[in-house]
Amino acid sequence: MPKAVLLLSGGLDSTTLLAVARRDGFDVHAMTFRYGQRHATEIDAARRVAARFGVHDHVVADIDLRTFGGSALTSDSIDVPRDRDVGERGVPVTYVPARNTIFLAFALAWAEVLGAADIFIGVNALDYSGYPDCRPEYIEAFERMANLATRATTEGSLLLRIRAPLSKLTKAQIIQLGTSLGVDYALTQSCYDPDTGGAACGHCDACQLRLKGFAEAGIADPARYR
Amino acid sequence: MPKAVLLLSGGLDSTTLLAVARRDGFDVHAMTFRYGQRHATEIDAARRVAARFGVHDHVVADIDLRTFGGSALTSDSIDVPRDRDVGERGVPVTYVPARNTIFLAFALAWAEVLGAADIFIGVNALDYSGYPDCRPEYIEAFERMANLATRATTEGSLLLRIRAPLSKLTKAQIIQLGTSLGVDYALTQSCYDPDTGGAACGHCDACQLRLKGFAEAGIADPARYR
Repeated sequence: MPKAVLLLSGGLDSTTLLAVARRDGFDVHAMTFRYGQRHATEIDAARRVAARFGVHDHVVADIDLRTFGGSALTSDSIDVPRDRDVGERGVPVTYVPARNTIFLAFALAWAEVLGAADIFIGVNALDYSGYPDCRPEYIEAFERMANLATRATTEGSLLLRIRAPLSKLTKAQIIQLGTSLGVDYALTQSCYDPDTGGAACGHCDACQLRLKGFAEAGIADPARYR
Repeated sequence: MPKAVLLLSGGLDSTTLLAVARRDGFDVHAMTFRYGQRHATEIDAARRVAARFGVHDHVVADIDLRTFGGSALTSDSIDVPRDRDVGERGVPVTYVPARNTIFLAFALAWAEVLGAADIFIGVNALDYSGYPDCRPEYIEAFERMANLATRATTEGSLLLRIRAPLSKLTKAQIIQLGTSLGVDYALTQSCYDPDTGGAACGHCDACQLRLKGFAEAGIADPARYR
């Protein structure tokens, strides 16, 4: 089985991504970050999901992005927006500066050590919050850079691939795909709100996109809402 | 003064880089990593250098690259090579997987929060150890990716520049440049060997390149060797 590094947040998208990678025969090395996110309970969700899918190993890496600030997801002084129009233009305050670049850089390091040619990331550019580092042109540019960055890709013959199979799916299609692959979405956590005591808020961007996705898919969302 | 983020290791190259950035009128935000390097005394050198040059601020970020292993610089089980022919082809065991990609990703995050358009990195592709992530084509690919990665570069009008002004200089030229800008190289640390009690070993790649550079520049190296 080919090895792959997979970025796993414990949310709906990355859990579906894991199901896709397993279906496609990859030996998955899952990677989760404790980056100072206020909704750190998602790390528990990532652990549940990794255990359920039989990954090869699961690393939770500590990197403190609160050093830089600048995001509602890491700063106690910026509120997570409620009931925002997620279709509106512009990057919202939940954007974390350069987060996917940092995550993919770590995944690249691990992939090189493992000799893995594939990195899976669950970005999505349709039903999403407008984060620039979720768009296909960004992913392609990262892949091009990565192939110039490492010993494995320059001295060896490794062609590194950043795989983003959910990129052009709607949230409803992602949920349908995962459901067809046996994903139990009760294991996942999407909510950004840090103060909901385990239940989802139903009002942040992530909850709104999730609820809309389940509604459009015609599938009941097993998450517990407050 | 325009703001810049500058990657500062405390070595000869990044110290010269800092002198260049200050000469060119940048308000410097210096960034150093405690990444699990065995030669962690270089962090003290970075602090000395930052204090001497009057940077705006200096962050030492903790990221543990020992999680992945794969390098003589982070693993106790791989020896730092002595008296290797630094001109030989191939990437040596001191290469740290994806290190510059990780460092630049963090610098990108900080630059975005600061509103800085410039990131300085002291890579050098002439008298160097053959690391793939020091080559101009890698730096250019990172810059292209970075300009697709952030809110500042996609929604705002920020054009992010990765500045590598030492890239095409020999080590001797770097030392001459720094000397002309008043750099005190006694503050810097180049040695990779973790067990030299403050003095440099004189035999690792970094020491060899440094000694050759000073000899070719016709300048005395103020470093203390064992």
